[in-house]
This record gives sequence, structure tokens and C-alpha cells, in this order.
Amino acid sequence: MPSFTSAVAELDASVVKITRSTNLRPVPAPGSPEELSHSHCTDHMATVRWTDANGWETPEVRPYENLSIPPTASCLHYATECFEGMKVYRGYDGKLRLFRPDCNGERLVNSSQRTSLPGFRFEELKRLIAKLMQIDGARWLPKDQPGRFLYLRPTMIGNGPHLGVQTPKEALLFVIAVPWPDPSKKVPEPGTKPGLKLLASHPDTIRAWPGGFGYAKLGANYGPSLQAHGQALAVGFDQVLWLFGQDRQVTEAGASNFFVIWENKETGKREMVTAPLENQLILPGVTRRSVLELSRAELTRPCGDLAPVEVVEKSFTIGDVEQAWREGRIVESFVCGTAYFITPVKLIRNGDVDIDMLGAAENAGYAKQLKTWLEAIMFGKDGKENHEWSYVIEGESDK
Amino acid sequence: MPSFTSAVAELDASVVKITRSTNLRPVPAPGSPEELSHSHCTDHMATVRWTDANGWETPEVRPYENLSIPPTASCLHYATECFEGMKVYRGYDGKLRLFRPDCNGERLVNSSQRTSLPGFRFEELKRLIAKLMQIDGARWLPKDQPGRFLYLRPTMIGNGPHLGVQTPKEALLFVIAVPWPDPSKKVPEPGTKPGLKLLASHPDTIRAWPGGFGYAKLGANYGPSLQAHGQALAVGFDQVLWLFGQDRQVTEAGASNFFVIWENKETGKREMVTAPLENQLILPGVTRRSVLELSRAELTRPCGDLAPVEVVEKSFTIGDVEQAWREGRIVESFVCGTAYFITPVKLIRNGDVDIDMLGAAENAGYAKQLKTWLEAIMFGKDGKENHEWSYVIEGESDK
Repeated sequence: MPSFTSAVAELDASVVKITRSTNLRPVPAPGSPEELSHSHCTDHMATVRWTDANGWETPEVRPYENLSIPPTASCLHYATECFEGMKVYRGYDGKLRLFRPDCNGERLVNSSQRTSLPGFRFEELKRLIAKLMQIDGARWLPKDQPGRFLYLRPTMIGNGPHLGVQTPKEALLFVIAVPWPDPSKKVPEPGTKPGLKLLASHPDTIRAWPGGFGYAKLGANYGPSLQAHGQALAVGFDQVLWLFGQDRQVTEAGASNFFVIWENKETGKREMVTAPLENQLILPGVTRRSVLELSRAELTRPCGDLAPVEVVEKSFTIGDVEQAWREGRIVESFVCGTAYFITPVKLIRNGDVDIDMLGAAENAGYAKQLKTWLEAIMFGKDGKENHEWSYVIEGESDK
Repeated sequence: MPSFTSAVAELDASVVKITRSTNLRPVPAPGSPEELSHSHCTDHMATVRWTDANGWETPEVRPYENLSIPPTASCLHYATECFEGMKVYRGYDGKLRLFRPDCNGERLVNSSQRTSLPGFRFEELKRLIAKLMQIDGARWLPKDQPGRFLYLRPTMIGNGPHLGVQTPKEALLFVIAVPWPDPSKKVPEPGTKPGLKLLASHPDTIRAWPGGFGYAKLGANYGPSLQAHGQALAVGFDQVLWLFGQDRQVTEAGASNFFVIWENKETGKREMVTAPLENQLILPGVTRRSVLELSRAELTRPCGDLAPVEVVEKSFTIGDVEQAWREGRIVESFVCGTAYFITPVKLIRNGDVDIDMLGAAENAGYAKQLKTWLEAIMFGKDGKENHEWSYVIEGESDK
């Protein structure tokens, strides 16, 4: 729960100070090295300063530039930092949309509390992003190029100058927008099937623990996991599949939630399974939640060629996955998250066992169907122009 | 182990580019608000840039100023950051000393590897600090004021501009020096006994876990623990005492290692006990190591009024501590670390039980004796002017 006191100012994105850049940056072409660098932001950024004494100051939209941070700042020493991953979509009707931005706002507030950063009314996040995209939207996502998106990174850091170990007394919330490669356009290596290869984590490295903070989108969950991630890449894998506990429960993939569709070994029924939220080990992904909600609404009865599935959030182990593969019960598998959207998994390596995840049908088509539904909502097409999960950004500047 | 390749430059603190400040900062008086703020650094800082392509660049000593950091920098999102806590001491012989700086250098390298930052030859850290203190030492720790110290904060951050989740491709190692309140000068509240009050952590929040990174001095260990720390302060405690596991093992205090001296319930012998390093839950403190080494050398036989102790690193639970208190077996207890040095503990609250830690003798004197020995080494007095744990900084500028 956010903890504000009424004595200090709340975050109010309805009032924004705008300073326009006089030195516009080149817009990188799709697939260009600049885009692939994940570092080339749009012309402006949104920033809001917070102090313990006065609360939230007036939000600003101002030219993108480096931040000036004291060498003693809390975020550089104590990882008082958290973030969100979102996208802004240029729709087929020419409109800009966010996808369920209040889910991200609420999660950012939960994350910030976990690392002692300030709370705010989560609805303000989407309004702040709208102010930024009203300025940068037309130039960076041209209205005549539907189907494109920018990656958005709302971030909060403790940037006060006090080096003593203490809860932050100053903070900065900022939002940047970054051209990002479209994961659906990634071409597999010649001679290989599409899909991710996941490397199951080694028992000596654990991403999260009950009583820890695996459920919050804190920087602290990422830095210590990069070593295993780098080792996985070095041997030709795309992400780590994080396991937990003596029984080697499957929790989540490196930067996304993991789903498997299989025939249940007891009931023989087809199940879509993902790890549960209750033990707070995994990130409650917005795409995860949307996949679960859509699947429960549409896939529990026959849907085109797709047989119905039971949709289940429960603990399962890598041993369960291996057994399902050995018994020919794997139907399909995918990871989902904002950065990589919904991407099929073709292989999991666990120790010296390579588990083929494509299933007999080489992906039955559940992931593809879910992507189609979600893209319609994100990009405002196929009758989903006014879906309740969309937030349309009105009032774009012409340039 | 540090992983350098011979193709890139290694860190070499023998060559430093020096840029002197032309705008010297006021030196705060001991006990002043500036000193108590833990934010008022000396005139200069040492910095060394690293890139994946070229390795370590030429170190610099340059005027203290804010860092210019891309909003996309790894350290702001993924907590690719680690640090050390050290002090530089003005000796009674007029010399500047570091205390076991290679221990800090080695730990910083271990920490940096754990969060995928670059390694270096750990001996270079003390040389880099020496370059900084040759410039700032005389003004900030005047030669005629022995017994004073500055807190040193060597820090490494991933500051490259790539937002994608990946091992850092750029990094900055910097060292800042901060006037710091002397913990031994802290006066207890009127009517209270000296010593810290520790609040045992609640089972729903843990600091570290096996397979995690509790043994490394990563920012990621601090941010998520500040909430519990702030709650402890709010109810009148000084630090959290972090417990782990179903059996509630005592691991460490908020920013320091925890020691208890008690009569062993089976043998009746007097023991000095602290948590072990093997399970990688706790930080391997330099003060902890020094306390253990000194105690094993000097306190296992009679020493003045102090009865001999057995020195033991082993797991023990808060239940063991409570039972020792109920049975009158507590002799003394203290925490130790660089920032708070060696400080007695007077009370631990565990749930609704207040455990009196002062012992029948109200601290037998072990902590006081250890402090005396260590201070002699740190400040070069009582025949310890040339101790092997000291590193004397030669070649100070006059001003």
C-alpha cells in the first residue's frame, strides 16, 4: 500500500512544466544499430523530484540528457531503485495507446515501497507518460506507420546525497522512451527452428527466496542474476530458467514469465500451467496476467483448431517438465513479458538433459492465438479499438 | 576470481592524472551538522573508467563533483553496483594509515564479479586511495590532530548506456572520502546505558539466502533491507538483527557482524561466537576477521582481568541466545564493522521478548580490549606503529 502523508504534496501529472528540446535527435530506422543498442532515447524525458520534506514537486517534460547524480547517492550504493517495462503502441487507427498502464503504475508503487522509495497514486503514471508522448509521439512513432512501438522505462531512484544507510530522503521518478527491436521480427539462425533456448539455473545460484523481493521489479533482482545470464548466452542460450528449492520448482525465465501447455499426467486433460504468485518468488507480469485472463475467458472451450485447456497457476518442477517430455505430453511452451512479448520456447537444458519443448505439433498455436488477440488490443484493430485494457493518449502535438 | 583477459588494460594506480580543485570546500568541524549528514565529501575524488573493449583507463584524481550518468545506465535499473567501507586514520605519529586495505580490495573484486562488473588486481585499490589522500589528507585530516579519521567509500557502478538486460559493457570505479561522526563519541540518552538495541527480523523478511549474494557487498543487499531498518528506527532500535531459516539462525546485524560471548550450555566454557561464512549468508567483515584473529591469538588464554574464551564460528539461533539469557550465561555482546567499529549491544527484542545482552558484569570488557588493540594499530600508537595490518600512505602534499 502506498504510504503518503497528507502534509506533503502528492504526485500530480495534470500539471507539467514543459521545456522543449531545440536539438532534436535522429530517429533510428527499424533494425538499425542505434535501435539494437537499446540506448538511443527519444528527444524528451519526464521527471518528477520527490523529497521527504515536501513530497512530489511539479513534473517536467524536458530534453533528454544525462542525470547529475551525487557520488554519495543512495541509488549508486544501496540499490534504492525500481522500474517498470511498458510499451506505447501506434495503432492502426492512428492513435497512441498504452496497454493496462494502471497495472504497471500499481506494481511500480509496490516495488518502490519494497525498497523504501516514495509512493504515489498509481493512476498518475499513465498521465505522466501521456504528457511525454504528446510531445515525442508524432516524431518517434509516425501516425502513418501503424504497428510500431517504443519501449517505455518508468524508473524511480533514490538520489539524495546522504551516504549513511537509511531510507531515501530524496528520489527521482523519470520516464524515458527507447526505440526497441521488434521481437517478432527476429529471424532464427539458418537451419534452426524458431523459439527460445532456456538454460535451467544451477542449484548454487538462486534468483529469489520467500521473504525476499522476487515479486518486486527492483534493480536488486537483476544485477546479481546477470552472471548466470551471461554464462547462458555464452553457451548459446537465450535466457536462464530460474529454479527454486530442493525440488527444483520452475519459477520464471530471465526477464519473462514461463508457461507450459501439457497433458496432465493424472487427468489426461490439457493444461496451461504457470508458477503461482503466492510465495512471492516471481514477478507478477502484466502480460502474464493478461494471458491468464484471456485464456480463462477464451481457451477453456474449443477455439478454432485449439482444444480447450484448463488454466492453472501452481508450483511445478523441472522434473515434471522432463517427465512430460519423456511421455510425449508437452503441447507447447512460451515465455511472456513486455520486452519479449510472447515468444515460444523450443528447448530447456537442465544439467545434461535437453528437453524438447516444441511438442509433437511443433507448437499447437496457443501462443500465436494469444499474440493475435493482444496485438489487436495494443494496436487498436480487428474490432478492439476501444478495449478496456487500452489507454488512448489524446492531444498529441503535430510535431 | 577476477577474470581479466590480457587483451585489455589492467587497472594501474601507479599512473594517475591529477586535476586539482580551484574551489576548496569547507572542512566541517567534528560533530557539526555537515559531518552528521554523511554527505559532505573532501575536495577530490578518484575515478577510473572501464570499458569492455579497452579495459581500465588511466585513473584520475579530480575535483569532487556530481557524476553525469545516462538515464539508461545499468546501475540505475539493474543494481550493477558494489562498494567497500574503509577508513583512513591520522596517526599519533602524524602518518596516514589504511587498515588491511588488501582485504577490502579483494572483497571489492569478489563483489564486482558477483554483479558482473570488472575485476582488477586488488592491490591497486590501496594505491588508488593513497593517490587521493596524498592530495586531500593534509587539509582534511590535519597532521596535528591525531586520532581523527575519514570514511572512505570505494564504489563500482555499471554506467554504460545500454538498457537491455546484459552484463555491463562500461563501468566506473570511484573513491570518495567523507568526514564521519566518531561512533565512540556518541553519548547515550540520559538515564540509559550505553550500547545498541537490536530488533530481530520478522520471519516474513529475510536479508539473504543460500545461493544468493549476502556474502558480497552489493547495493542489492541494502535497498530491500531499508524498510525493516526504518521500521526498527521508528520504534527506538538502532539496527535490525537479521535471522534466517525455520530455526531462526542469527546471521548479522544491519550493517555489521554480530558477536556474543556466553558460557556454553554443554561444556560450561566461555565462548566467543559469531555466524560462519560457509553458507554465504553474511558479509565477511574485515573487522570481523580481525576480531577473530586477535581473539584467537590473545584471548584464548587469560588476559588481564579477562577469562579465556574459545573462539567459534558456528550457526546459532535466537532461541540459543534467549536461553543463554534466561540461564544467566550471557557475558557480553557486540557488533563490529567499519562504520560503527566495535559497539556493545545491550538489548535484542525478538517478538515480544526483550533479551538483556549486557550480562551480569554489564560487559566483561572483551569488546573494549579488542577496540584498544585495534585502535593502536589503526592510529599507530602503543608500539603498533609498524603493524603488518597497517598500510602507511607516504608522500602527502603539504596542502
